[in-house]
Amino acid sequence: MGYLCLLLMYPPSGKETTMSRLKTIVWADDCARIIDQTQLPNELVYIEIETAESMYDAIKTLKVRGAPAIGIAAAFGLYLGVRTCPDTDSTEQFLHNVRVTADYLASSRPTAVNLFWALNRMKMTAESLKHESAGVIKKALLAEAKAILEEDIRMCRKIGEYGYAVLKDYTTILTHCNAGGLATGEYGTALAPIYVGKELGKEFKVFADETRPLLQGARITAFELMAAGVDVTLICDNMAATVMKSGKIDAVIVGADRIASNGDTANKIGTYGLALVAKAHNVPFYVAAPFTTFDLSIATGKEIPIEERDAQEIINGFGKPTAPETVKVFNPAFDVTPHELITGIVTERGVIYPPFGQNIKVILS
Amino acid sequence: MGYLCLLLMYPPSGKETTMSRLKTIVWADDCARIIDQTQLPNELVYIEIETAESMYDAIKTLKVRGAPAIGIAAAFGLYLGVRTCPDTDSTEQFLHNVRVTADYLASSRPTAVNLFWALNRMKMTAESLKHESAGVIKKALLAEAKAILEEDIRMCRKIGEYGYAVLKDYTTILTHCNAGGLATGEYGTALAPIYVGKELGKEFKVFADETRPLLQGARITAFELMAAGVDVTLICDNMAATVMKSGKIDAVIVGADRIASNGDTANKIGTYGLALVAKAHNVPFYVAAPFTTFDLSIATGKEIPIEERDAQEIINGFGKPTAPETVKVFNPAFDVTPHELITGIVTERGVIYPPFGQNIKVILS
Repeated sequence: MGYLCLLLMYPPSGKETTMSRLKTIVWADDCARIIDQTQLPNELVYIEIETAESMYDAIKTLKVRGAPAIGIAAAFGLYLGVRTCPDTDSTEQFLHNVRVTADYLASSRPTAVNLFWALNRMKMTAESLKHESAGVIKKALLAEAKAILEEDIRMCRKIGEYGYAVLKDYTTILTHCNAGGLATGEYGTALAPIYVGKELGKEFKVFADETRPLLQGARITAFELMAAGVDVTLICDNMAATVMKSGKIDAVIVGADRIASNGDTANKIGTYGLALVAKAHNVPFYVAAPFTTFDLSIATGKEIPIEERDAQEIINGFGKPTAPETVKVFNPAFDVTPHELITGIVTERGVIYPPFGQNIKVILS
Repeated sequence: MGYLCLLLMYPPSGKETTMSRLKTIVWADDCARIIDQTQLPNELVYIEIETAESMYDAIKTLKVRGAPAIGIAAAFGLYLGVRTCPDTDSTEQFLHNVRVTADYLASSRPTAVNLFWALNRMKMTAESLKHESAGVIKKALLAEAKAILEEDIRMCRKIGEYGYAVLKDYTTILTHCNAGGLATGEYGTALAPIYVGKELGKEFKVFADETRPLLQGARITAFELMAAGVDVTLICDNMAATVMKSGKIDAVIVGADRIASNGDTANKIGTYGLALVAKAHNVPFYVAAPFTTFDLSIATGKEIPIEERDAQEIINGFGKPTAPETVKVFNPAFDVTPHELITGIVTERGVIYPPFGQNIKVILS
């Protein structure tokens, strides 16, 4: 991968730059170009990704993150992994390479279901063309990855519209982690209603949890909301309860990495505690996610595997050690919020309310 | 102030160093010697403090922190502030200087009541000697500061004994911030039962919240527990809910900065959210604090002023910026946990249970 562009955009200027111009991932010059989100908010660095291995690394190390964006990235990664196969390969050999590459990319992160969904869709595209040549399938795979990106942007816009209808009478919204434009192709999921509101002249005030350990809220949510001219206040995760108690929060909205059949929702670590705190203060708690986030193969959140990440993220994440080097650390990247704590799930087809087990099936069918 | 000793103690060795040998604050060589806790866990730096101004700075910048330790530090600070007054000063002039210095030191931090308690005790000592010379009062003030330190160590040992009686049948304890030996003269408050247990052969397992933004849990609690050979696991604040849900936590114990007449407790930001999360999982939630932490002049926690600290602690605390430089930040240093969420308050005279309003009066009288 090559570093395409190094642009110091710090602090972001709300007037001149709007987030709709920042593209999480694009296909250009025959490669996938992504924003390296590990460099935010200090530098806006674009990386050109030309191989499946580079894409695996970008997903694994969170250069690209957010469940929908991971799916899009993996789709392009699959194409990148097989495009160098000779067009003269047998279709059987080519399809074998597709499956091997998909399995490899699927192992980059275990929790977000969009990753597996996107890779499956790419595999099915390939399999459906099993009577065609390797060259034809290759072209179809690139087209499919582009379609996944375009559909994601349209889905997020719809989520924004349905979410805005739910949130429009509120003023102050709290969010956790980043489920914004930079977690998707554009618009985001949890932040999409904020952006749709902005277009319609509604000025929400957003409180952003910084989201330890990797500070996606501080680095990415605060960055993209400021860039879009949205009023944002940064807090530490452990301050949400006291802000709610003071009556400052009208509603919470977060993204999701995987939603079980009963509505149990895996999302960034800290979401579950936040949902408990919202419940205690009678603050409505919304999840925003496209349908690709639902996993109807599992009944409840208990079946969702939770990724545990390296201790160094907690004890040495910011340039200097912040804990004894040899301390034992527990670092789960996600938690599961039971459906009982969720007010509604905002999707591109409308808002799902309890009973989730029943209503998810209805809206998905 | 001078830097006395620079000793790299990283990682701490559980075998050779026990926390009982580390002294938060001592009087030696005619000055107060404190551990600069902002340097932990990387360096164990002792600072010699020779003036009230240096002590004010040490309290303000959290070189010395923890409600009981702040009280002790302020008491020595008051003596340091008046010891250079000529012995030939009139008693009236000297007492005026005592009051001015006390007011000055009291303005260093607004929330912990021990600060005001210690300064009042020092002022009363001075006033009680208003028929004596400046020189005599001066000596009495130094003796009083030393007595406050010694009493604190004895109180914390008693808190440890009463707390151990409450916790001894549990195994896994979660704590927030640092209410350990380094927050007091020795032993600590919340961690005192752990240390008393250790002496008696009980091996608790402790989960320590890292405690954003200043990471007292990661830097100080993990450090001192490891140094004492206690099994400690570090988590981010937002992971406590998921750890409790997995059934890993038997009880929570935290310190306190001020306790109102009805039991409402101000403590490090994040304590309130943690108490809500403990309640949701039926995990007992204990507060440990000496009587100097109670403020019977206030009826409820609503009257406790909450210190707001600088945005830089959140956005630039790790050696490099972690959020856009100009982002709006809300940074309250404390929150108030309502008494309904507290199982019991462990003091040096025993454990207080609900109804707190009634039982606090009984045990204090």
